[in-house]
Amino acid sequence: MDTTIFEQHESEIRGYCRAYPTVFASASNARQVDEEGTSYIDFFAGAGVLNFGHNNPAMKEAMIDFLQADGVAHSLDTYTTTKRDFIAKFHEVILAPRGMNHKMQFMGPTGSNAIEAALKLARLATGRREVVAFSHGFHGMTLGSLAATANQAFRQWAGVPLTDVVRLPFETAPGGSTGIADYRAALQDPSSGVTPPAAFLVEPVQAEGGVNVASREWLHEIQDLAREVGALFIIDDIQAAVGRTGGYFSFDGMDLDPDIIALAKGLGGFGTPIAMTLNKPEVDAHWSPGAHTGTFRGQGLSFVAGTVALDYFTDEAFLADVLAKGETMREALEAIAAKHSERGWEVRGRGMMQALDTGDGAFAKRIQQECFERGLLVGPCGSGGRVIKLIPPLTIPEEDLRDGLGLLAQAIDAAAGAP
Amino acid sequence: MDTTIFEQHESEIRGYCRAYPTVFASASNARQVDEEGTSYIDFFAGAGVLNFGHNNPAMKEAMIDFLQADGVAHSLDTYTTTKRDFIAKFHEVILAPRGMNHKMQFMGPTGSNAIEAALKLARLATGRREVVAFSHGFHGMTLGSLAATANQAFRQWAGVPLTDVVRLPFETAPGGSTGIADYRAALQDPSSGVTPPAAFLVEPVQAEGGVNVASREWLHEIQDLAREVGALFIIDDIQAAVGRTGGYFSFDGMDLDPDIIALAKGLGGFGTPIAMTLNKPEVDAHWSPGAHTGTFRGQGLSFVAGTVALDYFTDEAFLADVLAKGETMREALEAIAAKHSERGWEVRGRGMMQALDTGDGAFAKRIQQECFERGLLVGPCGSGGRVIKLIPPLTIPEEDLRDGLGLLAQAIDAAAGAP
Amino acid sequence: MDTTIFEQHESEIRGYCRAYPTVFASASNARQVDEEGTSYIDFFAGAGVLNFGHNNPAMKEAMIDFLQADGVAHSLDTYTTTKRDFIAKFHEVILAPRGMNHKMQFMGPTGSNAIEAALKLARLATGRREVVAFSHGFHGMTLGSLAATANQAFRQWAGVPLTDVVRLPFETAPGGSTGIADYRAALQDPSSGVTPPAAFLVEPVQAEGGVNVASREWLHEIQDLAREVGALFIIDDIQAAVGRTGGYFSFDGMDLDPDIIALAKGLGGFGTPIAMTLNKPEVDAHWSPGAHTGTFRGQGLSFVAGTVALDYFTDEAFLADVLAKGETMREALEAIAAKHSERGWEVRGRGMMQALDTGDGAFAKRIQQECFERGLLVGPCGSGGRVIKLIPPLTIPEEDLRDGLGLLAQAIDAAAGAP
Amino acid sequence: MDTTIFEQHESEIRGYCRAYPTVFASASNARQVDEEGTSYIDFFAGAGVLNFGHNNPAMKEAMIDFLQADGVAHSLDTYTTTKRDFIAKFHEVILAPRGMNHKMQFMGPTGSNAIEAALKLARLATGRREVVAFSHGFHGMTLGSLAATANQAFRQWAGVPLTDVVRLPFETAPGGSTGIADYRAALQDPSSGVTPPAAFLVEPVQAEGGVNVASREWLHEIQDLAREVGALFIIDDIQAAVGRTGGYFSFDGMDLDPDIIALAKGLGGFGTPIAMTLNKPEVDAHWSPGAHTGTFRGQGLSFVAGTVALDYFTDEAFLADVLAKGETMREALEAIAAKHSERGWEVRGRGMMQALDTGDGAFAKRIQQECFERGLLVGPCGSGGRVIKLIPPLTIPEEDLRDGLGLLAQAIDAAAGAP
Repeated sequence: MDTTIFEQHESEIRGYCRAYPTVFASASNARQVDEEGTSYIDFFAGAGVLNFGHNNPAMKEAMIDFLQADGVAHSLDTYTTTKRDFIAKFHEVILAPRGMNHKMQFMGPTGSNAIEAALKLARLATGRREVVAFSHGFHGMTLGSLAATANQAFRQWAGVPLTDVVRLPFETAPGGSTGIADYRAALQDPSSGVTPPAAFLVEPVQAEGGVNVASREWLHEIQDLAREVGALFIIDDIQAAVGRTGGYFSFDGMDLDPDIIALAKGLGGFGTPIAMTLNKPEVDAHWSPGAHTGTFRGQGLSFVAGTVALDYFTDEAFLADVLAKGETMREALEAIAAKHSERGWEVRGRGMMQALDTGDGAFAKRIQQECFERGLLVGPCGSGGRVIKLIPPLTIPEEDLRDGLGLLAQAIDAAAGAP
Repeated sequence: MDTTIFEQHESEIRGYCRAYPTVFASASNARQVDEEGTSYIDFFAGAGVLNFGHNNPAMKEAMIDFLQADGVAHSLDTYTTTKRDFIAKFHEVILAPRGMNHKMQFMGPTGSNAIEAALKLARLATGRREVVAFSHGFHGMTLGSLAATANQAFRQWAGVPLTDVVRLPFETAPGGSTGIADYRAALQDPSSGVTPPAAFLVEPVQAEGGVNVASREWLHEIQDLAREVGALFIIDDIQAAVGRTGGYFSFDGMDLDPDIIALAKGLGGFGTPIAMTLNKPEVDAHWSPGAHTGTFRGQGLSFVAGTVALDYFTDEAFLADVLAKGETMREALEAIAAKHSERGWEVRGRGMMQALDTGDGAFAKRIQQECFERGLLVGPCGSGGRVIKLIPPLTIPEEDLRDGLGLLAQAIDAAAGAP
Repeated sequence: MDTTIFEQHESEIRGYCRAYPTVFASASNARQVDEEGTSYIDFFAGAGVLNFGHNNPAMKEAMIDFLQADGVAHSLDTYTTTKRDFIAKFHEVILAPRGMNHKMQFMGPTGSNAIEAALKLARLATGRREVVAFSHGFHGMTLGSLAATANQAFRQWAGVPLTDVVRLPFETAPGGSTGIADYRAALQDPSSGVTPPAAFLVEPVQAEGGVNVASREWLHEIQDLAREVGALFIIDDIQAAVGRTGGYFSFDGMDLDPDIIALAKGLGGFGTPIAMTLNKPEVDAHWSPGAHTGTFRGQGLSFVAGTVALDYFTDEAFLADVLAKGETMREALEAIAAKHSERGWEVRGRGMMQALDTGDGAFAKRIQQECFERGLLVGPCGSGGRVIKLIPPLTIPEEDLRDGLGLLAQAIDAAAGAP
Repeated sequence: MDTTIFEQHESEIRGYCRAYPTVFASASNARQVDEEGTSYIDFFAGAGVLNFGHNNPAMKEAMIDFLQADGVAHSLDTYTTTKRDFIAKFHEVILAPRGMNHKMQFMGPTGSNAIEAALKLARLATGRREVVAFSHGFHGMTLGSLAATANQAFRQWAGVPLTDVVRLPFETAPGGSTGIADYRAALQDPSSGVTPPAAFLVEPVQAEGGVNVASREWLHEIQDLAREVGALFIIDDIQAAVGRTGGYFSFDGMDLDPDIIALAKGLGGFGTPIAMTLNKPEVDAHWSPGAHTGTFRGQGLSFVAGTVALDYFTDEAFLADVLAKGETMREALEAIAAKHSERGWEVRGRGMMQALDTGDGAFAKRIQQECFERGLLVGPCGSGGRVIKLIPPLTIPEEDLRDGLGLLAQAIDAAAGAP
């Protein structure tokens, strides 16, 4: 396992490689194999990107066909047949059935860029400056999205004040139950020092923030307040959408009506970059052509694989399977928490994003290490990395899922010093 | 040519498609073909991304092999064999021969993100807040990079004050010849209201800004001042590197020693997204692991094609050919300018980035349209889009180049109402 | 009554003259007389400056003596005998009996400037940027103090973003009871997006904000949290100190230990400008000489009259009388509120700052007008000016006080259309 | 000389007292006397406040009369007879003869507050945010005015970023001759990253900044550019007006037409605080009543003495005398500079603000000390305090002036180690 090249020539900023000290050579569905032939079950899925597994066969085939046919791989925002197919199918499979007529906007292919675009549009549409974001929220690392990100572990490196964001507690944080009501009262009080925001930006399920799940009621409270004060209601569904929580969107079935939805990660299906916002037409109308540009907006391979990915959502059995596997994951975590009940761990999640909050970042890191040694890849999240988040590919074979959960239980026992 | 899908479902922000009103179906080297079979010579190359042509055969083959072998397409910043190959070869082909020992940092795969990372690092390394950027500079669209971008056409949509940037005139702008000296004097004066910056951020050749070419002397003046005042010297070579101007870097042969270099666009070779900064080790050492993260940092396909792209730079004939073609382009533009000499057009550029400054955005737009109608794709840049910038693939066949230049001359005559 | 000169040559910004449309020619204790000889009872006292009445005889005598002796009227921050007398007596009468060893800092003679200095010192002493201020707080009109002021009626004219202030609800505002606890929880949570502030800035009795009275418990809650998180505890006592609420400080007897106290208004006794902060020595030690300068820091006349004013606080009967008069005021307001009980008015206050919250700015303005017509000067405060605040000179003769309260009752009846 | 009280109880921030280590007991015209009876000639005049000397007899008499008649000493912005007299006379003596119809606005009585108000008004009137200010400019210490102040010695203590100001070099600073032209070019260039400001804020004679004198041509260049780009032209004449430089305004006779003029310091005549802006009616019309308030806006004593001060400007001989004395000062300084010509000192100034730039702050401090020991009070200014600025009362007796200049020459010889 030769990592010298990385140590000599790659930046000190590299991170995940320190937790997974090996060199991966290939990957297939929920398995990654390193160059020595060791196979790992992947419960991390590229930080929530690989919902359809590594090297999904149907996507791979479509991509190879596209390459062989000299498809337009890079197109800025010119029209291509491939992009048209994606847009048409996204509308047909996702938007139309939900009665949504949002416009699709493509930008630089990162979730952070989708948030930057959404915030620009909200400020443009309202003529206001401040945006409400929530504690434990994660929205990206560029200055505009980082200002909305809550975790000081990320914010501390900005080097400039992070401004123009008002912070409220997420529903599950201290003060969360009264936060929206208190903020409404402040907005109604001309001497509160608080003025109406351009938008409320919220993740229905905070992934990076520690797998915190908002209720339908609380999300409606936000949406209602946004409507009252003329602000936009923006949902960041970058990690929780594309089937992860059992619906295409994490807020499916909640009867919400967001003005802007930000997507990225799983949208391209195969792990190649893409980002998109869905903007209500009346909001989108505030854009002028080219107001937010970006070189890599038109990615043929991502459109091709992303189009294949949409097939999963025409098959009712797929999301049922996600929910069933999610239940399996949940039960396994509940059993682990019960076994170590004296430690007061909490299990949280929805669909195939399930997590164990150990309350202790150092301990969670030990779990991660014990997992790795047993051939299981997991990633910590939340404050200080104290939450073990499980986000395997949605397509993970039942057997890999059960094996992985077994390895996890063993690893936790080992980390906890249990017999 | 059915564009209904786009008109109904894509955001109003879409831009290039309005200048090229067709739907592209395939592309090969310097040619794009629309779904009706019309073939266009591409003098725009995806805004400077496709230096090695559309669907470069060697890259395509390597990518298909990689896909068929289930390579790791998406890896965050874990180690992969593919990434190791890229890093090793980049060091061997590019850095080592130049005596450079910069560390390679990968981030969210956009040039904007590379700039965001570079500015964070500069602020972190110096403990200072402000960054010097130049008039006509283009550095991206997210809030941190947009603050450094000069053009009001892009800045006006931010919706928040764009701060923490000090603006100096680029060498070729009014005041440019004395700007650095005046700024040095201000820095030496404790009552100037000016304090030392964290960094100077400059493009040796401003591409988007209108193809403005800095001299070796002026760049050294900046580098010297940066050294004097303890600031970093950052080169944004996102559009001008990777062979475009006749060297790998646009500043090759100038004996410059930048602390950070930002790359993206052509780096991945095939048009799939990737971004990288090169950080001097002593600067890079200020990073903590994970200080600037991003989902799409590890892109297998971009590493694979980008590794193939490096082969071009082991072949001395390649850059000689770039310079020769650049000379051809220059002569063609000079001839056009001479023919219309009463209009006072200026020809500028280096290597295979050559441009005609018409001084009139509306006129340049007409040229673009006349070109399109003749089967040639060109893009305007500079203030108000008044500069016609030619950046064909470096691999463009001689014949396509000459044909394209011929079409350009005709289009300009037509736009100018010449016989 | 010739007001032409004002209408022709004074700025449109003038305000109080519109509510009191006459020209005052002289004033004595709680009476102002206009140039037509109409005498008004003054329940406004120059916005809380004239605690010892207009033209207080002892002060007047001392000032004339000072002028005749060619005292140093203007001294910047050089030493003068007059200033020494003031400092010595302030220490002896106010600080020493309370066991306080705060340092006295003089600055530009406005309350706003005292707050600017206090915030600079807090940021300097902690190396932090943000300051907590409260809804309904009023701290001044210059950019630093205005950022801490809550009322949008004042904030809206800044023309620039008002930054670096975190807003919490005042105890009596919605969310006020849980605000400090929620904020503590956020400070303890590394993913809250909230970082420790440089200081908490609070008025124990918000005067301009609508006569909102904080409890001892809530102020201790703030002080405790400030101590916990290494922030300073700053009390803005500009309007409520100098005897107004029945103690020298508005927080006398609460066992509080603020790091900085800001004073101005009544401090100079006679109405000539002065401002001062009291800084704990260990905090004050962060200042460098001249770090916050100002031309009018050393005001001989204000020192002379202010020294005389301190005599009031060596006489125990004085504050007892203030409390007794305050009780008279309270009873009168309670009677008024009771008479109009169907309107749901609230009476609030402490000592000789008592107020009637009518909940209706337009109505309060009518009351002010009816009062003026009857020879009584009162001023509205609070959101939209809905609160009638009574702050007569502390030295008001019993008879003027009762007469004034009688006029107020009549005026309110008239405004309310009561018989 | 007992300074214990100050050392024990006054803030460490105190400054001038460290340079003048004595306790002043009285003062008259250009003399200050300490409590031990030592008399000092005052070439500092309270930092340019006491243009008419300490305890000017006519003013003193008027103030005593006012006090004895129970005049309204403190009036907020209500109408008083005293204020009417001041406004009427200011219009008659100053504005009308110059054809000016500016409105007079009173605010918190500091120069800093006048600048805060002027900047608010400029931003309000233009809807723009940034203001141009110049190197070496001094405009105050509150956050809004401090952002416009150039000297890092003052800026460094702000504790927050000082924003919304664009800095250009003053005419006499490096780059000053081309600064306005370069800035105009940038404003005309849509890709310069520079957008039109709300205002240009300039001192025709920079006092605190080191006695830098702008030319009529340069000031017109600024005014012209302001007009071109729709920005206001604001003159800060706080230290240089009220006769100091030989006219009432420092720009008298230059045919300038500023939109706003800020005054304070000498305006009140006697050293009691007052500040005022003069706003063109069409600019002033943007104010709403009460938009910028302040407790100490209406100062009876300052109006009374300030009205007396205006008498000086109805007497043509007065300003002629100022110019003659200024010439005396200039000649004395030139002689000193000539005597020490090997040191390359520069003499600068206009009227009775004359200065010797020694180029060395430590040396200037020694001069100040040598002066003090000889009974002469002078103050250093400029970068690092390297400039000895002479601003005696305009009313200084010829003999005191010559004696003081003699003491200065001796002190400089002593400081320079000359025989």
